[in-house]
Amino acid sequence: MHSVQFTAETTSGGVLERDFTVGGIPGVLWSPAPTSERAPLVLMGHGGGTHKKWPAMPGRAHRIVHGCGFHVACIDAPGHGGRPRTPYDEQEIAALYRAREAGEPEGPIVVRYNADLAERAVPEWQATLDALQGLPEIGADGPVGYYGLNMATAIGVPLTAAEPRITAAVFGLHWPDALAAPAGRITVPVQFHLQWDDEHIPREAGLALFDAFASAEKTLHANAGRHKEHPRFEADSAARFFARHLTRSVPAPAVN
Amino acid sequence: MHSVQFTAETTSGGVLERDFTVGGIPGVLWSPAPTSERAPLVLMGHGGGTHKKWPAMPGRAHRIVHGCGFHVACIDAPGHGGRPRTPYDEQEIAALYRAREAGEPEGPIVVRYNADLAERAVPEWQATLDALQGLPEIGADGPVGYYGLNMATAIGVPLTAAEPRITAAVFGLHWPDALAAPAGRITVPVQFHLQWDDEHIPREAGLALFDAFASAEKTLHANAGRHKEHPRFEADSAARFFARHLTRSVPAPAVN
Repeated sequence: MHSVQFTAETTSGGVLERDFTVGGIPGVLWSPAPTSERAPLVLMGHGGGTHKKWPAMPGRAHRIVHGCGFHVACIDAPGHGGRPRTPYDEQEIAALYRAREAGEPEGPIVVRYNADLAERAVPEWQATLDALQGLPEIGADGPVGYYGLNMATAIGVPLTAAEPRITAAVFGLHWPDALAAPAGRITVPVQFHLQWDDEHIPREAGLALFDAFASAEKTLHANAGRHKEHPRFEADSAARFFARHLTRSVPAPAVN
Repeated sequence: MHSVQFTAETTSGGVLERDFTVGGIPGVLWSPAPTSERAPLVLMGHGGGTHKKWPAMPGRAHRIVHGCGFHVACIDAPGHGGRPRTPYDEQEIAALYRAREAGEPEGPIVVRYNADLAERAVPEWQATLDALQGLPEIGADGPVGYYGLNMATAIGVPLTAAEPRITAAVFGLHWPDALAAPAGRITVPVQFHLQWDDEHIPREAGLALFDAFASAEKTLHANAGRHKEHPRFEADSAARFFARHLTRSVPAPAVN
């Protein structure tokens, strides 16, 4: 098993931000500063074409650290941020840009490429979680959530379906094609975000993915607006969702 | 214009509860205790077959008073609580019970009866709002919201469409039949609650009513579960929605 290697550390606005690697995968861990007591962990994925420190990521992480007192970890997806692209990555990204320039639908390419990324990313997330749970301020038996929209939903749905340590998840803004089957194996509480006037994802497709989750407790938040108009206040909804679901069973802190 | 006649007053858990009448219509006003500064007002409707002090009403009111520092007012709908039933009320209520006993759909009766109740209730709400705005702790130009599910949506949608003083509204759990047209005239921010597995209101019907609002800012909260399983945490969502939309433009308190 790989362990967490910390490579840099800053503190800003009461939040400790530590860059790390696990088996060569670069990540960042946001924590309450100073970190002393054990706290739940939220795994947070970034969207397609961005990376672990894209402004929305520290923004959402700070809301969760401040609002819940939890840790938040994000790693670069394959081919993203500080990670090399394979020839297949280059080919799919070129196909996506061609479709955009031609005004053709992005959906078929995004669905296909994200499914491939998910196959590579799921084991990386599991190794990262193994390593993070080795830190005394997280621990092996603490609550774990997952938070990711767009490409991070394409990765997070199969991850959550495969990973019993994840007990609550926020997803959204994706097609059901490759995800309806793993969603049907997810039974933990889910909050799902959808844009009512999404120009890429047909409304019926977004609703079908929400419908596919087997969770007894699931909530859809659908907002008026286009794909990129997903409102910022939904990051607060996500933080409150995690506060509700990850705090109940926090184990007593280990002797440390 | 009628004025507010207070008839009883209690204080519990930091909330002042005052019974009142306006032109013979009985209501209740919940306020932060002690009430000193001017604060926004939320008009809250009760569901069919219940009344202004049905447990959900003071429960939701306390969340708004505590969470936002606002006033909350609820009045008994026609034929409900302390108000007499007309022969037409008796006839429709009997028809509803017959449909329930026979296992027939309630929808057609509820839609028809609630539309009639709304015609009677809208002017009553307007007179109540006129009178409440005469109180120094509310005032004539403060922000006003509306919050009501089920029958209170059937009343609240035409009320909000007709009433420019209402600048934010929470609705839900109703059919679109009589409401899609007035919803199409509503442009203020709306939060809409729907039960994903509602045994009375078909999913497509609930989604169609959400779709009908002309508001640029509208959010659907759809939760897994049947009609009566609407989760309690959505009362907190409503309180946060009102905090976001009714606090920005609070006028300076009058000299008092």
